[in-house]
Amino acid sequence: MSHTATKAQRLQLDGGTLLRQLKELGEIGADSEVGGRTRIALTDAEKAGRDLVAHWMRELELEVVIDRIGNLFGILRSEADDGTQAPLMMGSHIDSVTNAGALDGCYGVLAGLAVARAYREAGIAPSRTIMVGAFTNEEGIRYQPDMMGSLVYAGGLSVQEALDTVGTDGTRLGDELTRIGYAGTLEPGAIVPHEYVELHIEQGPILEAEGIQIGVVENLQGISWQQVSIQGNANHAGTTPTHLRHDAGFVAAAIVTFLRQLAQDSGGTTLATVGCLSVQPNVINVIPRRATLTVDLRDPDEQRLKLAERRFAEFLETVAQQEGVTVTTERSARFEPVVFDAGLVDSVEASANRLGFTNRRMTSGAGHDAQMIARIAPAAMIFVPSQGGISHNPREHTDDDQLIMGAEVLLDVVLHRLGQAQA
Amino acid sequence: MSHTATKAQRLQLDGGTLLRQLKELGEIGADSEVGGRTRIALTDAEKAGRDLVAHWMRELELEVVIDRIGNLFGILRSEADDGTQAPLMMGSHIDSVTNAGALDGCYGVLAGLAVARAYREAGIAPSRTIMVGAFTNEEGIRYQPDMMGSLVYAGGLSVQEALDTVGTDGTRLGDELTRIGYAGTLEPGAIVPHEYVELHIEQGPILEAEGIQIGVVENLQGISWQQVSIQGNANHAGTTPTHLRHDAGFVAAAIVTFLRQLAQDSGGTTLATVGCLSVQPNVINVIPRRATLTVDLRDPDEQRLKLAERRFAEFLETVAQQEGVTVTTERSARFEPVVFDAGLVDSVEASANRLGFTNRRMTSGAGHDAQMIARIAPAAMIFVPSQGGISHNPREHTDDDQLIMGAEVLLDVVLHRLGQAQA
Repeated sequence: MSHTATKAQRLQLDGGTLLRQLKELGEIGADSEVGGRTRIALTDAEKAGRDLVAHWMRELELEVVIDRIGNLFGILRSEADDGTQAPLMMGSHIDSVTNAGALDGCYGVLAGLAVARAYREAGIAPSRTIMVGAFTNEEGIRYQPDMMGSLVYAGGLSVQEALDTVGTDGTRLGDELTRIGYAGTLEPGAIVPHEYVELHIEQGPILEAEGIQIGVVENLQGISWQQVSIQGNANHAGTTPTHLRHDAGFVAAAIVTFLRQLAQDSGGTTLATVGCLSVQPNVINVIPRRATLTVDLRDPDEQRLKLAERRFAEFLETVAQQEGVTVTTERSARFEPVVFDAGLVDSVEASANRLGFTNRRMTSGAGHDAQMIARIAPAAMIFVPSQGGISHNPREHTDDDQLIMGAEVLLDVVLHRLGQAQA
Repeated sequence: MSHTATKAQRLQLDGGTLLRQLKELGEIGADSEVGGRTRIALTDAEKAGRDLVAHWMRELELEVVIDRIGNLFGILRSEADDGTQAPLMMGSHIDSVTNAGALDGCYGVLAGLAVARAYREAGIAPSRTIMVGAFTNEEGIRYQPDMMGSLVYAGGLSVQEALDTVGTDGTRLGDELTRIGYAGTLEPGAIVPHEYVELHIEQGPILEAEGIQIGVVENLQGISWQQVSIQGNANHAGTTPTHLRHDAGFVAAAIVTFLRQLAQDSGGTTLATVGCLSVQPNVINVIPRRATLTVDLRDPDEQRLKLAERRFAEFLETVAQQEGVTVTTERSARFEPVVFDAGLVDSVEASANRLGFTNRRMTSGAGHDAQMIARIAPAAMIFVPSQGGISHNPREHTDDDQLIMGAEVLLDVVLHRLGQAQA
């Protein structure tokens, strides 16, 4: 699939530039030995990524604006815009997990720039101002909660609270934001979008498994994150009878296996993941005194997500009592499921059909900035397939032609929403 | 319980000095914030402990000898010893786990010195040379296997292989031994003991629970240590259906819960502990790609220990296949159960009875240097109660009067074995 032949004044996608920019941005923060890249929010590597994206925005003569939480925007104004017009916003994020792929987030930002480029190259102004955002700290690796920049933008977390967040490395987010030079002056949310469209890789296996080209994302799972700490009793591995143990590591393991069972019992709607797990003192012949772990629960239905949380809490109480340990939990993020704007979802589906791409409606398994912006504006998402469903991994991959198809759908949606589609 | 009134020329225990030395040695490597001490083999802190023990040996005018693996000995010769007499050896170790108590190991070494002191203060020479050993790296925290110094001494591991061991911190044992100045010249095992008695805290709950003062240790559990590595597939927590996961962390957890079941099924004879456990990349919303853990299996019966190892190996195969991960194991230590010398065990029991201390025969749950020396000489052990069964923990505690009782039994055993008991 390639885009249609060039005509003067025709708004069309420059797929080559999009692919080159994805590659170039993906080289920033490269992990030398294992492949992949690590561009965690507000690190030097992520600053370098921001600098490159801002440079590309300026090349397109976009107005570059940074808000107080570090969200980076490029604005292409309509002729009618006196500075008060609500823009059509596109965007995503450019921060990454540890040892990540090159597409997660970056694709949505760079495809947004590709839409702006289509206007610039055709010499046409958008009929409504368009705006491309790269939101701060979507991944939540160093600072929690995740999707922080868009959450603050949508008014779900105060700027001050976000700036005061202390990271896993003991740093304060606001200090790091200043250090890398991205503490802007725009008040987050000051520019309320007219609507918001985010293009993203699926990060799951469904589209590839079904041989479908475009995912029309109509809703998004709820997410519940908890930090669990277990306090048991360190003791000698060789002399402590099993029934007298207060083994924090065993309780951590029992939690992991319980959550697997809980996910299986849900018939596939609830997902449960323990991503972080450590024990202390971490010595071969000492029963762990302490264990800490994270729990990530997701479900597209709020009632089922609440049920999973309740069942988990009951299990913690039971297992703590049985083993004679103390379990404490702290909620680090909680987002209800989101239903995207029906009209905008219809537009995405119509564009995919118009361009002749096979498509299906689907639920987003991952959290995205779109779910935050959906609090203040109609929002929707477009997915393209992820090979093997793999993401958060250097092997994250989508074929070039599929990446271009997704960006063509984004451009088509924008053109139709702005009434600038050309027959 | 205090010792009997002083008489000239009477061989008797100086309990006060023993307690003072335990306290003083226990202050070396103190963990400032959490209490306890960390004196891991061949670190600067352990060198300081060695220096202090060697100083105390010289105060007693013992011959101080260090062998090529760093075992530290103090020798008090009989008048008949022309340098070839096989000595009665006492001893244990002074290296510790991380954040340890003050008694594990140190008690046996310093009680050995207390026996030598009884001879010195009475002005009597032993009828057979006595020798007190502090064996290198009993705990195996930094370098594996544990009980390394006594294993080498007994010929179970070549000196060169032991010196070439690479630690968890990447250091070579032989280099560290030289660095701290304890690479001696005596060939390990060159002095074969006539017999060996080791006094130790129980590190388990049995004596305290039964209100018994002295444990007469007649055998010792077999120990099997394995390092387990699991290679799965990192993927996004929100988009990967449960049935498509290859979750290394889940497999690690399933291993921990399986081992608990295995221990419970054994009716209490098999002990199973997972002391070390970690996952990678250790990120909240990423399914663990890799997990590593240690497995410590123990049983007093070799056949049952082998059965446990076999059942575990079968489980690994099953769970690896079910989850679609690769599991590799490496054996880091394997010691068969040890039955101590019947005559020497009888002597320990007779001494406890003679002194009027309640006692019981028992199995050692922990590994001890005695099990290695048992390969080359008749050996036995004496236990005193551990409060709450707690060890490898700053809260490790035995009451002072019980510590003195144990040392009195050791002295009495030595006096009777040497035919120097005074009515």
